[in-house]
Amino acid sequence: MSTGDVLDRLAAVIDSRRPGSGGDPEASYVARLLHKGPDAFLKKIGEEATEVVLAAKDADHGGDRQKLVNEVADLWFHSMVALSHYGLAPRDVAAELARREGTSGIEEKALRKAQRREAAGD
Amino acid sequence: MSTGDVLDRLAAVIDSRRPGSGGDPEASYVARLLHKGPDAFLKKIGEEATEVVLAAKDADHGGDRQKLVNEVADLWFHSMVALSHYGLAPRDVAAELARREGTSGIEEKALRKAQRREAAGD
Amino acid sequence: MSTGDVLDRLAAVIDSRRPGSGGDPEASYVARLLHKGPDAFLKKIGEEATEVVLAAKDADHGGDRQKLVNEVADLWFHSMVALSHYGLAPRDVAAELARREGTSGIEEKALRKAQRREAAGD
Amino acid sequence: MSTGDVLDRLAAVIDSRRPGSGGDPEASYVARLLHKGPDAFLKKIGEEATEVVLAAKDADHGGDRQKLVNEVADLWFHSMVALSHYGLAPRDVAAELARREGTSGIEEKALRKAQRREAAGD
Repeated sequence: MSTGDVLDRLAAVIDSRRPGSGGDPEASYVARLLHKGPDAFLKKIGEEATEVVLAAKDADHGGDRQKLVNEVADLWFHSMVALSHYGLAPRDVAAELARREGTSGIEEKALRKAQRREAAGD
Repeated sequence: MSTGDVLDRLAAVIDSRRPGSGGDPEASYVARLLHKGPDAFLKKIGEEATEVVLAAKDADHGGDRQKLVNEVADLWFHSMVALSHYGLAPRDVAAELARREGTSGIEEKALRKAQRREAAGD
Repeated sequence: MSTGDVLDRLAAVIDSRRPGSGGDPEASYVARLLHKGPDAFLKKIGEEATEVVLAAKDADHGGDRQKLVNEVADLWFHSMVALSHYGLAPRDVAAELARREGTSGIEEKALRKAQRREAAGD
Repeated sequence: MSTGDVLDRLAAVIDSRRPGSGGDPEASYVARLLHKGPDAFLKKIGEEATEVVLAAKDADHGGDRQKLVNEVADLWFHSMVALSHYGLAPRDVAAELARREGTSGIEEKALRKAQRREAAGD
């Protein structure tokens, strides 16, 4: 199955756990997060981003790369819970990424900004 | 185009910007990040996770949901730069997510853990 | 000068940069952050926390410990800008820390919670 | 008691919980964190930074400012555990902050950098 099939199908499962879709906080971890509200899953995004950073630094020193995959999976998963709460989906994120790619010169613009920032001492 | 097609194609573009693949730090933002090394893109992951949190909290108070989409796109994009640096790709993340989904009882396990943590006062 | 004298004096300088106290965004970095509003300094807190994590991991592998001191200084400094914006100060944080320390059994409570969380599989 | 007295005294308590100082992971939360090693307290720094951001955004919308004080206390506390692990202390952070303050023109330098970054489109 393709990357997108997995994400789109997982997004559908997450959507089905929303309180309004019959998600049961006593029977599902995702339903529980969605039931507790934004702070619950936003905290997890902060946590998981830190764990990605830790796993990457460990990989620089011989650590297991699969650990990094697992942490990125956790980060993206909890991002998808957040998207679902706000009525959004991975396809919206993909559309935004495709839009940027399609807009000629986007990377050059980001590059020139980064170059100016570095010239500014960052 | 599907969600996954976008991510897989974007990952291929990112891979082509690696130093060993001829990426030019003077001509490409991604090549520049990869050339500067892990701390450069890992800092961005920390930054973008915080921006996702800020955009989500703003959406709770009437803010534009597209801002949240943009920030998740930034977060996933820089995650993909990190994956590329370590020779990994979104398909590895998707495989891990599919593996979890396919393992019966995974969500129940996460749920019971969350319940025990809450009983523990968290 | 003692640790607290430095923090209290720095907090007074930060307070003097608030818009209502005559802080000039064109003449002061702190006045600029306070003028731009919460997202500006909250993003910095997320960034600097990530830089603390990176510097600490580097210190584990022979990196310069002074880099860690610098990053914690940045993190605390931007925390103090946030406190000032909300009419708070380091002495409020110190009072909270002293209150916890003075409350007998606080650390034991945190410990038992941590132990239960670990037993729960975290 | 002054802000610094509280931090310096708390740092001494944390130091006494280090494995080499007889800290008992079964009897103290701090000893447990120090015993588990860097990732344990670095994760907490990432978590608590996110909680500071959440509490600040809530304060913007009428939330309790004491919640923000509590989260900054948690963030600084876990920063102090990290400092202790690396043989450092709040007085090192205060010395760095005092050094910056004492160096004439520091804030002006940060300001000009911020202005150039904004001119660069950030």
